Amino acid sequence: MTHHLRTVPTPAAVIDLERLKQNTRKMAARAHRLGVQLRPHVKTHKCVEAAQLQAEGHFGGLAVSTLAEADFFGQRGFDDITFAVPLAPGRAPLAAQVAARLRQLNLVVDHPTAVDAIGEEARRRGQTLSLLIKVDCGYHRAGLLPDDPNLVRLAQQIHSHTHLNLLGVLAHGGHSYECVGVQAIRVVAEQERNMAVNAAAHLRNANLPCPTVSVGSTPTMAVVEDLTGITEIRPGNYALFDHFQADIGSCTPEDIALSVISEVIGVYPERSTLLLDAGALALSKDPGATHVGKTPGFGRLCTLDGHPLEGLTLTDLSQEHGKVKGSDVSRFTIGDRLRILPHHSCLVTALHETLYVEQEGAIVDTWQPVRGWSIDDKAPKR
Amino acid sequence: MTHHLRTVPTPAAVIDLERLKQNTRKMAARAHRLGVQLRPHVKTHKCVEAAQLQAEGHFGGLAVSTLAEADFFGQRGFDDITFAVPLAPGRAPLAAQVAARLRQLNLVVDHPTAVDAIGEEARRRGQTLSLLIKVDCGYHRAGLLPDDPNLVRLAQQIHSHTHLNLLGVLAHGGHSYECVGVQAIRVVAEQERNMAVNAAAHLRNANLPCPTVSVGSTPTMAVVEDLTGITEIRPGNYALFDHFQADIGSCTPEDIALSVISEVIGVYPERSTLLLDAGALALSKDPGATHVGKTPGFGRLCTLDGHPLEGLTLTDLSQEHGKVKGSDVSRFTIGDRLRILPHHSCLVTALHETLYVEQEGAIVDTWQPVRGWSIDDKAPKR
Repeated sequence: MTHHLRTVPTPAAVIDLERLKQNTRKMAARAHRLGVQLRPHVKTHKCVEAAQLQAEGHFGGLAVSTLAEADFFGQRGFDDITFAVPLAPGRAPLAAQVAARLRQLNLVVDHPTAVDAIGEEARRRGQTLSLLIKVDCGYHRAGLLPDDPNLVRLAQQIHSHTHLNLLGVLAHGGHSYECVGVQAIRVVAEQERNMAVNAAAHLRNANLPCPTVSVGSTPTMAVVEDLTGITEIRPGNYALFDHFQADIGSCTPEDIALSVISEVIGVYPERSTLLLDAGALALSKDPGATHVGKTPGFGRLCTLDGHPLEGLTLTDLSQEHGKVKGSDVSRFTIGDRLRILPHHSCLVTALHETLYVEQEGAIVDTWQPVRGWSIDDKAPKR
Repeated sequence: MTHHLRTVPTPAAVIDLERLKQNTRKMAARAHRLGVQLRPHVKTHKCVEAAQLQAEGHFGGLAVSTLAEADFFGQRGFDDITFAVPLAPGRAPLAAQVAARLRQLNLVVDHPTAVDAIGEEARRRGQTLSLLIKVDCGYHRAGLLPDDPNLVRLAQQIHSHTHLNLLGVLAHGGHSYECVGVQAIRVVAEQERNMAVNAAAHLRNANLPCPTVSVGSTPTMAVVEDLTGITEIRPGNYALFDHFQADIGSCTPEDIALSVISEVIGVYPERSTLLLDAGALALSKDPGATHVGKTPGFGRLCTLDGHPLEGLTLTDLSQEHGKVKGSDVSRFTIGDRLRILPHHSCLVTALHETLYVEQEGAIVDTWQPVRGWSIDDKAPKR
């Protein structure tokens, strides 16, 4: 059955194909212009088709957020993959198993215990595993500061291990999400660049190899103008963007390529509320850029063709209900459909089994995101 | 491979089988004692095995939150199912399709437009569909107030339709979640009972049938002592409970049967933080009972054997990272495992492909929750 926005089963996560293509082309052009390789992160959609658009015209490497993604994309034509989360030592056997099925799997570490676990697993299997050292560039989520003497010690530990390969350093300027406006994001982008380059210099000064100097968050990579000393960037959210990104200034609302289509299931003028069939399992409970305060509630409510509905707020989400407060709700009736621009694309797509692909209001394709943290041993090798 | 809590792949959603059994038996005993049928809601886990424990010794009816659940459980031995969300008119064809595969599917409405859509679909297919009218008992999410003249009008519309069957009224005291303490919850429970019974009286006074008077939220049904006039209750979360329920007083922390096992992937004493491999896709971004303020952050951190770790807070979740702040983090090392009692079980289970079943630290089974909003046409009929 051919669907369009008025018939697609709700709640539906819908990707605007033209916007996705525009976003991926724009980031690819930026990377070319700034002289870095683009290693797109695919965690925002976890679909092969979107990853292919992101990698178009590039070397084909990806960044992923789970070993399940690493294996899934590895079995589908992408053979150089960075698992960009510090590896849990308990996952070292699975990482080695995934690595054996790929040309190149790159793992991230910031602690000698993790290096020991990975090195031991590699030795046991007779494999060589490749590691990047996580650098803290000010986000303070993971990683070592460039000037921390443990950085060079960790690099030496990796470099001297017969079954490990030291690839370089990796940083993520996630504190760009706390910014408001392009100028503030550019300050974080320069800090991200500068600290990654400093970390690489420390390694090279100690006669250690550092071929890769990798950075990237969507906000910083959407606005950065100088990437001197950087070899690759790893933005991901930019493929779809979301209202958080629009609120902090890394995109415009017109760039947002993901929306959730929802049907009105209740109209209550006496209490100025509507009820939608999109709840926490369709939208996630991400509250968005609360520090900016532009878009209260759980997403921006729009007409089906994308015009913002002023005066309406998606105030509450329960599991399968979305409660909207606002004036003049009697203009709606049961069965009307709304488009919701979500706060956080990465969390929304992960909740949906199927992503519907839209072109000018018609559903032209359906994509299936990979899910969870386990690998499918029965997946065909391509 | 046999797993235990030290080897199960993390992040893992783990159900404590003994606690689940204790919770389901306790609610069943309450229902018997209070003289009502128990129609357990299964949206909290969406697994056949847990539904069987909830239905044990009862008439076997279930409540569900999606038509996907209705069909899934309907194909697996449960043949009297209430889809307890007001039906989106666009979903009427799917509802009729699911109903045709069950002995009894009960739909919920509160608006004449929805009744029209469902009636039209039933007529077109030559089916009879059964409807419950949603009553607003003070939660103000959906439904008609008992004294609203539209209630009797809607009942008459249903009752006079040749292809519709009026089953009665249904209310949900969801505002019990805003309470603090048992006494406050009991006030909501009495309001829920009273308003549902009033609505039923209005129907009966108008010579309309009202065999079913259905109420239930987990907080109200966990503490209510009088259900005069009620025929069935529909709690769901009580099967697993969560820290929200413990914080408002509908259970104790020792009743919580769901936890997420996570591995430490970063230790940063210099900034008093740990990093876990459980992020927003393992725990959801539900902030919990913020009005109580007992459990800040995104869940209660415990040792593997369930002892609360005082002084540590799970302050930030990104997609696959959980950031913990606290003093004395250097007692942990990379690879240590923690147990997290989540704020909202219903959202956590829906994020996991597999739920691991635990008995005294051993993983004895794995259960698969049904997912999404579509039905699997190829599912075997049982």
